[in-house]
Amino acid sequence: MSQALLKTSHDRAHDPLHVATELAQRLAASANARDQAGGHAAQEREWIRESGLLTLSIPTAYGGQGADWPTVYQVIRILARADSALAHVFGFHHLQLAGIQLYGTPQQQRRFLTQTVEQNLFWGNALNPLDKRTSATEADYGFELNGVKSFSSGSVGSDWLTISAWHEETQSALIGVVPTRQHGVAVQADWDAFGQKQTDSGNVHFHQVSLPSTQVLQAPGVKPTAQATLRSQVAQLVMANLYLGIGEGAFEAAREYIGKEARPWFASGVDKAGADPLAQHRFGQLWLKLRPAAVLADQAAHELERLFRLGAAVTAQQRGELAVSVAEAKVLAHTAGVDVSSEIFELTGARSTSTKFGYDRFWRNVRVHTLHDPVDYKIRDLGRYALDGTLPEPTAYS
Amino acid sequence: MSQALLKTSHDRAHDPLHVATELAQRLAASANARDQAGGHAAQEREWIRESGLLTLSIPTAYGGQGADWPTVYQVIRILARADSALAHVFGFHHLQLAGIQLYGTPQQQRRFLTQTVEQNLFWGNALNPLDKRTSATEADYGFELNGVKSFSSGSVGSDWLTISAWHEETQSALIGVVPTRQHGVAVQADWDAFGQKQTDSGNVHFHQVSLPSTQVLQAPGVKPTAQATLRSQVAQLVMANLYLGIGEGAFEAAREYIGKEARPWFASGVDKAGADPLAQHRFGQLWLKLRPAAVLADQAAHELERLFRLGAAVTAQQRGELAVSVAEAKVLAHTAGVDVSSEIFELTGARSTSTKFGYDRFWRNVRVHTLHDPVDYKIRDLGRYALDGTLPEPTAYS
Amino acid sequence: MSQALLKTSHDRAHDPLHVATELAQRLAASANARDQAGGHAAQEREWIRESGLLTLSIPTAYGGQGADWPTVYQVIRILARADSALAHVFGFHHLQLAGIQLYGTPQQQRRFLTQTVEQNLFWGNALNPLDKRTSATEADYGFELNGVKSFSSGSVGSDWLTISAWHEETQSALIGVVPTRQHGVAVQADWDAFGQKQTDSGNVHFHQVSLPSTQVLQAPGVKPTAQATLRSQVAQLVMANLYLGIGEGAFEAAREYIGKEARPWFASGVDKAGADPLAQHRFGQLWLKLRPAAVLADQAAHELERLFRLGAAVTAQQRGELAVSVAEAKVLAHTAGVDVSSEIFELTGARSTSTKFGYDRFWRNVRVHTLHDPVDYKIRDLGRYALDGTLPEPTAYS
Amino acid sequence: MSQALLKTSHDRAHDPLHVATELAQRLAASANARDQAGGHAAQEREWIRESGLLTLSIPTAYGGQGADWPTVYQVIRILARADSALAHVFGFHHLQLAGIQLYGTPQQQRRFLTQTVEQNLFWGNALNPLDKRTSATEADYGFELNGVKSFSSGSVGSDWLTISAWHEETQSALIGVVPTRQHGVAVQADWDAFGQKQTDSGNVHFHQVSLPSTQVLQAPGVKPTAQATLRSQVAQLVMANLYLGIGEGAFEAAREYIGKEARPWFASGVDKAGADPLAQHRFGQLWLKLRPAAVLADQAAHELERLFRLGAAVTAQQRGELAVSVAEAKVLAHTAGVDVSSEIFELTGARSTSTKFGYDRFWRNVRVHTLHDPVDYKIRDLGRYALDGTLPEPTAYS
Repeated sequence: MSQALLKTSHDRAHDPLHVATELAQRLAASANARDQAGGHAAQEREWIRESGLLTLSIPTAYGGQGADWPTVYQVIRILARADSALAHVFGFHHLQLAGIQLYGTPQQQRRFLTQTVEQNLFWGNALNPLDKRTSATEADYGFELNGVKSFSSGSVGSDWLTISAWHEETQSALIGVVPTRQHGVAVQADWDAFGQKQTDSGNVHFHQVSLPSTQVLQAPGVKPTAQATLRSQVAQLVMANLYLGIGEGAFEAAREYIGKEARPWFASGVDKAGADPLAQHRFGQLWLKLRPAAVLADQAAHELERLFRLGAAVTAQQRGELAVSVAEAKVLAHTAGVDVSSEIFELTGARSTSTKFGYDRFWRNVRVHTLHDPVDYKIRDLGRYALDGTLPEPTAYS
Repeated sequence: MSQALLKTSHDRAHDPLHVATELAQRLAASANARDQAGGHAAQEREWIRESGLLTLSIPTAYGGQGADWPTVYQVIRILARADSALAHVFGFHHLQLAGIQLYGTPQQQRRFLTQTVEQNLFWGNALNPLDKRTSATEADYGFELNGVKSFSSGSVGSDWLTISAWHEETQSALIGVVPTRQHGVAVQADWDAFGQKQTDSGNVHFHQVSLPSTQVLQAPGVKPTAQATLRSQVAQLVMANLYLGIGEGAFEAAREYIGKEARPWFASGVDKAGADPLAQHRFGQLWLKLRPAAVLADQAAHELERLFRLGAAVTAQQRGELAVSVAEAKVLAHTAGVDVSSEIFELTGARSTSTKFGYDRFWRNVRVHTLHDPVDYKIRDLGRYALDGTLPEPTAYS
Repeated sequence: MSQALLKTSHDRAHDPLHVATELAQRLAASANARDQAGGHAAQEREWIRESGLLTLSIPTAYGGQGADWPTVYQVIRILARADSALAHVFGFHHLQLAGIQLYGTPQQQRRFLTQTVEQNLFWGNALNPLDKRTSATEADYGFELNGVKSFSSGSVGSDWLTISAWHEETQSALIGVVPTRQHGVAVQADWDAFGQKQTDSGNVHFHQVSLPSTQVLQAPGVKPTAQATLRSQVAQLVMANLYLGIGEGAFEAAREYIGKEARPWFASGVDKAGADPLAQHRFGQLWLKLRPAAVLADQAAHELERLFRLGAAVTAQQRGELAVSVAEAKVLAHTAGVDVSSEIFELTGARSTSTKFGYDRFWRNVRVHTLHDPVDYKIRDLGRYALDGTLPEPTAYS
Repeated sequence: MSQALLKTSHDRAHDPLHVATELAQRLAASANARDQAGGHAAQEREWIRESGLLTLSIPTAYGGQGADWPTVYQVIRILARADSALAHVFGFHHLQLAGIQLYGTPQQQRRFLTQTVEQNLFWGNALNPLDKRTSATEADYGFELNGVKSFSSGSVGSDWLTISAWHEETQSALIGVVPTRQHGVAVQADWDAFGQKQTDSGNVHFHQVSLPSTQVLQAPGVKPTAQATLRSQVAQLVMANLYLGIGEGAFEAAREYIGKEARPWFASGVDKAGADPLAQHRFGQLWLKLRPAAVLADQAAHELERLFRLGAAVTAQQRGELAVSVAEAKVLAHTAGVDVSSEIFELTGARSTSTKFGYDRFWRNVRVHTLHDPVDYKIRDLGRYALDGTLPEPTAYS
């Protein structure tokens, strides 16, 4: 074998999109069965760990792969087509790493990102800002955490958690990081939604948990910088790509089913399901939901990448315009995901509803996940912007 | 207590809508749990039997309650709001009884309807005309049946079945009735769709099953009369009312949830979820999907009732115009059911996806059942009619 | 000719639907040309007058035809299919007569309705409650009116006007009637919208106009009764039927064009435009917009008729439930009218845009008229009602 | 003034987007009045000529400005926001120039493009391939043309025309160019559609018109190359950008009107129209129709540019994939244009329908122009492609 070929082969094996595609195939084989069973996908999470993709978004300076955001989002989308729950866990892992880069001091970045590479760590989320039941009270060493936090995606089976806690004195939240196995942290595998079942998104309890100052990313009472508020845009775009991946997965399932299994309707006058003009037309309409969402999500990823690399120099105006682009992509992906995953059945028909195919999981997954924050408020934000240029207010959701 | 009051109380207990409402409440208590478990609802089917509603559509001349079709469909809808699988089984029972009235000789009607009243029988369906794997071969006594029939709703746990079988010589199907427990009939509880799980809609196998001539409702090679072809309209309107009942059930679940459980979105500026103008607007849009479907379904039921009572005098033109009305109602109910059961979540939010509520069952149930025949061909039929008055061709689906 | 036939023929000539159909045909011949020219349709208004239909809704006790509201609305719809501007003028005439019945004393009813029959009068509207530029100041004889009133449909060419005027002391409006040719009343033919051009909906100026007490229907400072507030429901349903008539007119125009003029698209593989499955499907979808609107409008008309005949006995609850039904019909008619009048062109194609057909007038007419009050607030009202039973607040628009 | 500033100022004056913006402002001032009057915009066409933009797409080798297609399309869109009829004439001029580059020999390209630059010529279209009434019969010098050609956009007032004519022997069409003022060519200003009134799109008559061989771009009986068939993609993208420009123009008109003229609805509880949450939401939805159409149109323009520059090397596969991208953009622009131009009125309200604003022209213009070829067949083409990779068949429309 020539050196050139060897090199190509070597490169290909390390190309994250190639790695993701292989991982997705592996996940796909059991995705339907695991979706029906629910619970924690311990083995599959190890496969993700082994794939090396946990270091994808970490800068090369800390030993990571230094992939840009468009690549990270492509990987999320590839995984989501096959298994949106594990794609979610994967995406939220990188969201935590983004948070460290956006909020953390240089020392914190070095410490946590290097450690993540060296120990191939998995990060989870316990940050839900609308749930104020976890309190942070000041202590010598920093803060003590007590309470519970819901919707903690990826918490079960994680090594570290990003957490937020309510600080009564300043009437604001702090953000910090804690090892999942730290004394007093109890992760509950009690997520019981009808979709995204294996996202390990249950409650995390904190009982007298010490949070040293060195692990506080955002102190209470401090207004986040424009840079810090990019985190919610990273998160929103993770979701947009998950929704889109689910929609694309549903579309692809229908495409295959129509080619292999579906029968033409007796009144159609055609000899195969795919030749029915009404089916072709409807398929075209579904395609026209997915494509714009994909193109706008990609474009938003490029904008995010540019602002992310600006670091502290990013302005509120730039951040706000990114939020508009991300909102556009997210609403389109939301609508495309929900509509396509429900409408494919008009094309595949009654026999495709067998649990052996499990095609309802696309709708259940996207339906549950698209409720993260209300789409009508995103649409309203876009209308406001279009009317008079008002930028979305930087929150954990916009 | 005055005689007048006693009479009212007595009447109310026998009012089928009242009986249905009480039955629905009983079914509702376990509907979510049974939906998740799937399988045969033996006990709940006995509750239906005990309610007396199995004789609802049977003429008083045969000992039945002689209810008109609008009442039967109301009962189906009331049950479907609570438990669409058992409402389906119930509706298909009455469809079989309609078939006997539309196809059967006076002797057959007397025999089977009287027997149904006397023994409080439950009827199932094994009639799927697109599945030609069951054959009828001539025999001295009538026909011998062999083969298998799919999508046999209500077959498990039934007493009698309406069946169709393919007759090779005439290249047509016969329709007959057989006792479910007859030798050679094997009902398989193998229905595995992701919705309408407890409809007992699996495969029925026939092995050397004798079908005496007296049990043949429609002989092979005989063109069905306009009266006989009303059966598919009875069936289509059963479905429309099931879809509508599911949509109404989903809507009602959302309404209750918003009143009791939902929190207003932090950016809404209102103090309860139901006061959010964007939520009110979206709720209004869902309402505007359900209401027209309900009004047109009711109107079509009245038209069906009128033609049903015409008996053999019904003309092809009348039947065709009814088919248009039923198609209108069915498409609207289809769309309303699918859309409302998916969109309610935009209003109820993330916490409403807990399996303890089981609100996904509305979408799963309506999604599976709406695939009975393709909605796009119903819409095309309506377009044809609107263009030049072409009536829908009488088939098992139109 | 037998007496029976003579009688039928005589009846038919007096059947308002027959009269309306003949009038509509006469209007249709010049509808396109008059739409393009705009202005006052003096001759065509005389045709309406000559048809006898101006007395349609007047009780027989006062010499009118005593038609019920469902009939009046059918007539409006028949006329609107052909000429929605004159149908509007006609509908608003009957709205004024309804106002007299709902607000007026027995004496006023007798006087104005009898006079309308005897002199075959045409009534116009100058009631726009959002325009408070016309004031009423107390005088010995009653009130003096000064100011201007916009959107006065049917004012040009009318004999009498219903007016509203702002009464500063009570911070409320009075409602009264004045002869259009009374000294000080100046009707301006300055309506310049791009649709409903011949509705004579310009400004009316009042300069020291005397309004005797005997012509005051609703005194200032008096809270309207539930009966009185039925007037806005009569008005809303006039609009719903106008929108619907326009949508039906557009649909019928497309149907005829496809049958006679349209060519099949070269890639369709069919030999006439109406045989194209994609066209049939789209036609079916348009039909499914019009039909529910028509059915619900008819149902609402029957409900209105019932409450209208209750007179002073009508309750606020009944009135509110009617308002819900009317709102449902109006939103459906609004959407159907706007969508159908725009979408027909996808079916009729480029050649159908010639001004010789004037098919754009359907969209222009319905687009202008559907802006009477915002559809989004009607939808919100329905959402509120569906959520917790809140009835629409009685206003001039709901 | 510094040299740097002078240079910038000089560059800006020659920046085609700047030139187009200034031209658009000039056209906007009279766009409403000219739309209402219709007819030939002789003066405004001279403004276009004077702007220098007629040479925009001509390669610098022939003295043109050598702009890429993304720039040409941006200019079309800028003009269409203000005046879609003249933008259409402008776009079709460049379409003819593209045709010469795609079909013509090097000699023809040199001759016609150089001449266009030197004489600042305006090109029109007489190519409608579905109209076969113009015949080409062989003659010594080339062909003689006789007959008539409809839908000839930009023909009135043009200097040269691209024409197609039916060649009976080969049952195919030739394509050539003729001077508009040549003997036997009669351009009729008889375009009478209700929109795009000033596009000069009437009939062109040919009576014994000589077409020398040197003016034949595509001989009859010759299968067009993949490169030649790019012409229909150039055309389709001209249309997409026109539709989009109209939609954007309508949106901008509504935005301005809401800011300056609209009043809040009395039941909204807000103090200016733009603060109404229902209005903001609807505005957001309109924005979400326009944005994806714009992004996909831009992306398709870049793909077209790349293939256009490949010249004869472009493959059928590449051409087909471009056709998919263009179809996506065109369907989205079609839908966005039609929907936005109709829906803005829900936001601007009744007073915005005055002819002094002329806001109906957006809908009329886009409605007429979007009928160039049926959108349902574009959607079907996309569905086919999505189902099994079938590329759109190269025709004059796809």
